[in-house]
Amino acid sequence: MSSPEPTFDVRKLALPHVARLQAYTPGLQPGEAGWIKLNTNENPYPPSPYVAAALRREIGGDGAALRLYPNPKSAALREAVGRLHALAADHVFIGNGADDVLNLLVRCFCEPAAAAGFTLPSYSLYPVLVGIQDGRALAVEFDRSMQLPLEAIAGSAAGVFFLTSPNAPTGMGFRTADLEALLGRFRGLLVVDETYAVFAEENAAGLVARHPNLCVVRTFSKSHCLAGMRVGYALAQPAVIGLLDRVKDSYNVSRLSQAAALAALGDPGYYEGLVRKIRGTRDRARETWTRRFGWFTYPSQTNFLFTEPLDRDGRAGPAVARGLYDFLCARKVLVRHFGSHALTSSFLRISVGTDEEMSVLQEHLEAWPKSA
Amino acid sequence: MSSPEPTFDVRKLALPHVARLQAYTPGLQPGEAGWIKLNTNENPYPPSPYVAAALRREIGGDGAALRLYPNPKSAALREAVGRLHALAADHVFIGNGADDVLNLLVRCFCEPAAAAGFTLPSYSLYPVLVGIQDGRALAVEFDRSMQLPLEAIAGSAAGVFFLTSPNAPTGMGFRTADLEALLGRFRGLLVVDETYAVFAEENAAGLVARHPNLCVVRTFSKSHCLAGMRVGYALAQPAVIGLLDRVKDSYNVSRLSQAAALAALGDPGYYEGLVRKIRGTRDRARETWTRRFGWFTYPSQTNFLFTEPLDRDGRAGPAVARGLYDFLCARKVLVRHFGSHALTSSFLRISVGTDEEMSVLQEHLEAWPKSA
Repeated sequence: MSSPEPTFDVRKLALPHVARLQAYTPGLQPGEAGWIKLNTNENPYPPSPYVAAALRREIGGDGAALRLYPNPKSAALREAVGRLHALAADHVFIGNGADDVLNLLVRCFCEPAAAAGFTLPSYSLYPVLVGIQDGRALAVEFDRSMQLPLEAIAGSAAGVFFLTSPNAPTGMGFRTADLEALLGRFRGLLVVDETYAVFAEENAAGLVARHPNLCVVRTFSKSHCLAGMRVGYALAQPAVIGLLDRVKDSYNVSRLSQAAALAALGDPGYYEGLVRKIRGTRDRARETWTRRFGWFTYPSQTNFLFTEPLDRDGRAGPAVARGLYDFLCARKVLVRHFGSHALTSSFLRISVGTDEEMSVLQEHLEAWPKSA
Repeated sequence: MSSPEPTFDVRKLALPHVARLQAYTPGLQPGEAGWIKLNTNENPYPPSPYVAAALRREIGGDGAALRLYPNPKSAALREAVGRLHALAADHVFIGNGADDVLNLLVRCFCEPAAAAGFTLPSYSLYPVLVGIQDGRALAVEFDRSMQLPLEAIAGSAAGVFFLTSPNAPTGMGFRTADLEALLGRFRGLLVVDETYAVFAEENAAGLVARHPNLCVVRTFSKSHCLAGMRVGYALAQPAVIGLLDRVKDSYNVSRLSQAAALAALGDPGYYEGLVRKIRGTRDRARETWTRRFGWFTYPSQTNFLFTEPLDRDGRAGPAVARGLYDFLCARKVLVRHFGSHALTSSFLRISVGTDEEMSVLQEHLEAWPKSA
């Protein structure tokens, strides 16, 4: 037996870029009940009843199936996702949530000498993943119009470019024809992160079959009400899928997560109904905020709205947005404020809840100007 | 609209070390029923009934909770695991299986200029993870005695060293006093991979509180009959846990996986009973193979046995081991043969099944010498 190692400092042993990292800050997940949770773009409705039924089947009486490893490639789910998009299963990769897929793409294509590109603002996880990889980040700035910066992306030196489409946190959609033009000009792999695509007018999944430099990323979190189950996927040509398969965890998706996602795909009618309902709620809220409040609110092709609140004196700005955030938070309504970027700091991102939740929100928004 | 990109070659765009990778080969997971599956060290018994009950509660009638993200840090599970080991929750990290934890450790401590060490033979995932990271690998060879190569590890230049304890695929345990001596001399982070520790005489978890250069990795897969749920953990001092938190996926463990692991920890008596039963089955099988067959079989502190079969002429060797593997496979009994290393190629690794499964195995083993 020896004495402990008094001089050991793990920070000196860790890779220098890891020791310097800041962790990604996910949206708050309050533990207690009673919150109206409009901060992380979860679907406000339960998943298809097929999901709970399939999970009960897989668990059985005693959970005996859980003692066995899951299918390492999520083979049945690859087949089903492929059928959904009219692609063979070798065009599909299944991840532990879309974040897992994004992380693996960074590991395949990004390092200090190979930049990963992304727009600002967009999903704030991209620069975090690039930082974990000690990669070079190449940011393309939007202007306030939030139109696709096609020229800047096409001319960028990024080996891989992450484009959230529709974009977050603005909700703005891009035209598939523009994305296809970009694929013809950009020399790297274009990752079109379609987390919110089921709520949009168009999407790029149909381009995968004929564009070897396209990777479309999707998730069951929002579209299929399964954020708690962590299932996402990539669609791309087999050469890209083969790379992801080499860097993934062996058993990356649990048995129950595979079963839940498979069951959800078996009930498309249920989810089409939810998408219609959420779009309707979304469009009515935008109409109200724009017309009645005069708040500039980007047209949304997602399940959230990005709105610039005006105070009682008609002023917008970061302090106004933060003030409304705090006002709502005190009333147990949770939304999201991205204070660190000039194009986002005057806005709030508000997930589309149920009609009942949106009514409560609306009452608070109307009460806000009258508050002290 | 533009024409497709005929010259795009994703292999040229991928990082060179990724394009060269070979994927890890997990043990076979046969899809159809009827197999006796003794190839991936799964626990042969169902999990505690608390697990199925907790899962049903979390799913509820309609799966509504599944629409919400899981707790990003698995906070309640960190608390419970900490209590199990008499450590504060800030000494615990929860991963998507132990493989996720091992992968994150590689990302924190290994690169081309910072070697990751491991023994040969041991868990064959380590070199795969180092390869994904483009890191330097430093292998320390066992000899046939399979005793801890303490001097070689202590003197190695690895920044992080992965030591499977008890070891796989041999099943040999190491003395905690020897591990503590090693901690006093090794200058890097010692990762003691205790996947099989619940089946062993001793373990290193009690050393975490006083050794800043120790990280113990555990999994619920084998010990708690939950391989299908993908939950593993690390025990280490907060500085190490803090690094893992910076490089992990935001929501790395699903709601149901967290619920299953938590429920399992609530029923220690059930699992103590399973461990006793599996040890008994294991020790009887070793006794039989050693005494009746004369097969050299390492003393096991795990839930598997590593045995060197002799053919009817009393010969051992890679062809004999492979022959028995094929013989068993043809009878739907799946075991594991590691043919690529001189110290493993004459052996089979056989997971400990139920007594019924081991009886069927035993009949086949007795029939084998009489077969053509």
